[in-house]
Amino acid sequence: MSAPDLEKIAADLESLEETIIARLIDRAQFRCNRQAYLPGRSGFEGEATASLFEVRLRYQEEMDARFGRFCAPEERPFNRCLPPARRRVHLPENCLEIDNYDRVNLTDPIRSSYLELVARICAPGDDAQYGSSVEHDVYAIQAISRRIHYGALYVAESKYRADPETFKDLLAAGDRERLLARLTRTEVEARILDRVARKVETLQASAVGNSRHRIDPTVVRDYYADWVIPLTKEGQVRYLRRRLADR
Amino acid sequence: MSAPDLEKIAADLESLEETIIARLIDRAQFRCNRQAYLPGRSGFEGEATASLFEVRLRYQEEMDARFGRFCAPEERPFNRCLPPARRRVHLPENCLEIDNYDRVNLTDPIRSSYLELVARICAPGDDAQYGSSVEHDVYAIQAISRRIHYGALYVAESKYRADPETFKDLLAAGDRERLLARLTRTEVEARILDRVARKVETLQASAVGNSRHRIDPTVVRDYYADWVIPLTKEGQVRYLRRRLADR
Repeated sequence: MSAPDLEKIAADLESLEETIIARLIDRAQFRCNRQAYLPGRSGFEGEATASLFEVRLRYQEEMDARFGRFCAPEERPFNRCLPPARRRVHLPENCLEIDNYDRVNLTDPIRSSYLELVARICAPGDDAQYGSSVEHDVYAIQAISRRIHYGALYVAESKYRADPETFKDLLAAGDRERLLARLTRTEVEARILDRVARKVETLQASAVGNSRHRIDPTVVRDYYADWVIPLTKEGQVRYLRRRLADR
Repeated sequence: MSAPDLEKIAADLESLEETIIARLIDRAQFRCNRQAYLPGRSGFEGEATASLFEVRLRYQEEMDARFGRFCAPEERPFNRCLPPARRRVHLPENCLEIDNYDRVNLTDPIRSSYLELVARICAPGDDAQYGSSVEHDVYAIQAISRRIHYGALYVAESKYRADPETFKDLLAAGDRERLLARLTRTEVEARILDRVARKVETLQASAVGNSRHRIDPTVVRDYYADWVIPLTKEGQVRYLRRRLADR
């Protein structure tokens, strides 16, 4: 397997921040629209129990699965039992050392934390634009998921390779706290949080004085602090444990 | 029918600029990937003649059709023979005065002009990321199409209502050139072009010094000047002619 390219990993993670923020801003142009998230209220033929959000996410992932999206390690699906890919996907050789990427699938907490985020980025109320709302939800949640799984898999592998003996010991000891502490780089995390808040400002600067609904930069910063970074590290723990079992 | 709300129309059109530009920037993170646009080279099971771009656009529109996207006047499909909506879509009352919105469907020139734009916003060459490339193509082309059709339908209606007698005469005379001249507001167009170029700068300001591929603002400005604005006006001509026939 090829060695992790640290510069490329860092650049890709940073570039995903713009995508996530742009998607959140798009979603925020619609109201909270709580009805779109209520089970049994999808209004979709043949979907008596799901919410419109769940229906849209499943349809999107069924399409994406046929195009081979989930062949990529960092693309983990929110749904199970998706159809097989109908095209052969060219994947660049990667440095990862586990057999089943879904051993590091964090989509459940990503979905629940995102659904709480919606109320903090959107204006309250209902504009009846449920279809557009869940369309943008799905794009946003997919971008967030890609960021977290990418960071979980590739950063864990690169940290491991930088100091394999220490990680072997920590994993053998089964000490989750010490493992998490070893994976934590406080100054890097602080830099990410500042950068994310700044990008939310910058990406909305063009909208000053017009009618676009604006997102509070601290809300996105907090979402990174409370969910994106911790879930990425949780994924790193899972990855490294799995690596020990598989190799 | 309700009266056109000019302020809301202008605000919506302006807001769509951010969406279009963000989508183009996302696409530009991948190479041109010419293979994704070659007929018969989709690599997709059961799709012997289409390109991967065409397959993706059709799958996306089939999904969107089921969710009711094309019930909205400004959402015109690129494909024909799409499945019916499986949910009832709440549409706000609108001011439009034609019976069939597909009489103003400009998707053919939108598609061909967009495919030429790809080579001007992306780095040349092939990174084999065909699936991601066409995914972002579809999001970009849908945003462009929404902008053009929205401007064609709603702006035409509001211009007509501001001076119905003049428009009736121009339409009765069948003088396309004079009609186009009457629909043209040179100073508004100049303002749009400047604003679009500035937004391309602003939306990429956060990426200074990192590895994101950057788009030349003049390329997007020119695309607006050569395609978005002329196609919007062409749509206005079609709308007004149809209005005369229907009412």
